[in-house]
Amino acid sequence: MTGFRTTIVAQEIIRRNGVVRAGSRVVPAEVPIAFSYGGSTHAVMMGTPADLEDFAIGFSLTEGIIASMAEIEEVAVLDEGQGLDVQVRLAENKEDALRARRRHMAGPVGCGLCGIESIEQAMRVVPDVRDVGVVLTPEDITAAMAALNGAQPLHAETHAVHGAGFFIPGEGLIAVREDVGRHNALDKLAGAVIRAGREGGQGIVVVTSRISVEMVQKTAILGSSTLVAISAPTALAIRTAEEAGMTLVALTRGEDFEIFAGAERIGTGSVADVA
Amino acid sequence: MTGFRTTIVAQEIIRRNGVVRAGSRVVPAEVPIAFSYGGSTHAVMMGTPADLEDFAIGFSLTEGIIASMAEIEEVAVLDEGQGLDVQVRLAENKEDALRARRRHMAGPVGCGLCGIESIEQAMRVVPDVRDVGVVLTPEDITAAMAALNGAQPLHAETHAVHGAGFFIPGEGLIAVREDVGRHNALDKLAGAVIRAGREGGQGIVVVTSRISVEMVQKTAILGSSTLVAISAPTALAIRTAEEAGMTLVALTRGEDFEIFAGAERIGTGSVADVA
Repeated sequence: MTGFRTTIVAQEIIRRNGVVRAGSRVVPAEVPIAFSYGGSTHAVMMGTPADLEDFAIGFSLTEGIIASMAEIEEVAVLDEGQGLDVQVRLAENKEDALRARRRHMAGPVGCGLCGIESIEQAMRVVPDVRDVGVVLTPEDITAAMAALNGAQPLHAETHAVHGAGFFIPGEGLIAVREDVGRHNALDKLAGAVIRAGREGGQGIVVVTSRISVEMVQKTAILGSSTLVAISAPTALAIRTAEEAGMTLVALTRGEDFEIFAGAERIGTGSVADVA
Repeated sequence: MTGFRTTIVAQEIIRRNGVVRAGSRVVPAEVPIAFSYGGSTHAVMMGTPADLEDFAIGFSLTEGIIASMAEIEEVAVLDEGQGLDVQVRLAENKEDALRARRRHMAGPVGCGLCGIESIEQAMRVVPDVRDVGVVLTPEDITAAMAALNGAQPLHAETHAVHGAGFFIPGEGLIAVREDVGRHNALDKLAGAVIRAGREGGQGIVVVTSRISVEMVQKTAILGSSTLVAISAPTALAIRTAEEAGMTLVALTRGEDFEIFAGAERIGTGSVADVA
């Protein structure tokens, strides 16, 4: 635990129907969170100060620093006053490998996009999840989003954070994580899933945000073959999902949704079937 | 001009009211955009491939690489196939200064948060805009947001990008820029404003997104004292706006809005007045 709260009550002036009055609103905290490996700062992100062990493990996974939880020896969270320093101790050979990679990179990486050094790095090849064998029904998509919508306490309080959940057909939503940043929410979820001893291939990732390419990359690295979102995808997110053999569902509202890639995994038929 | 389009038409399967059919949707492009100074890559971001000169100039300004447009000699956009390389040539003394700073940083910076190396850097002090003298009425806030809502062609087509506008009371909206990323949209706007020979202090920044701390930082660096948003702010964004003497208005919907900092700049009275 740290001294950081996840929300504050902000004093404000509200203008509504032409009437001005004093009021207050619960807003989410936003705190600099540094990740350090072997004592060296690797990246600093703004995020919600909660679920920091999940965040450290998920970030390490989706950034390719670790391949499994066994490669992390210890996570310690230090309160630095203005922010949090999440200190990760890797298994010894991993620390050496990361040190060598950092020298090569000549700089810290960030959310998976910022801080990278070349266009080629931005377009990194994602794992192929074509043979990851979850079979879904349209009802699973609807149920996953409905479950996520009902399981976001921080969003219920603030209406201003993103959520990411992991839904296993026949079992339900096994984890939800929230953050002011959508990449952070997904990294925290990835950490929660592998800490729970689950594998990404067992279920689907469901998120409240839009789908940019990094959301597809992170989902594939977690090993899940299905990503379901409330909002719309970018063109590059769709192409990356197609290349990875991933099912990408977006604009999920109630029982309605739109499938942009990998429709064969859901029992609706392919574009060719329904055209 | 480059060979990159800002949208594509994606083929999809639509499920609506229980009926499944083939369809299509216009989605925004998302392209790696590298910024190079003096031939060295400084940062790579995912963004909308449009208004790249504005982006280069605005990014250079809000990252503190330049203080005015006069410090940029030339901007050239190279099509690298998988992405775009925006090559910026700075005035000579500026190139030397940036080279020295890069050595010190030991790595590229990104959107103003990722890629930074310490919690202290994340909490950078923003310019004080307390004495920037725009006086506003509640009607200006409403008019600014209404004008922005009607001036987003890419959003009208895709419903999936962010917009940032610059509104001068008595004159109207003088620039709008759009991007899949909200930081990018604001950087592009900053570039457009200074390229138009305007100063940030002449008007207000109005955005379609939530307000995290970087949005406040970028607005202050542009020199504007007022930031108006559709969505909610974070606690740190509010605190940073207060420290900078900035007016922060959020949850702007029609004629309703909520003022979280600097209410004295808008003719509604302060919290003390209306309490």
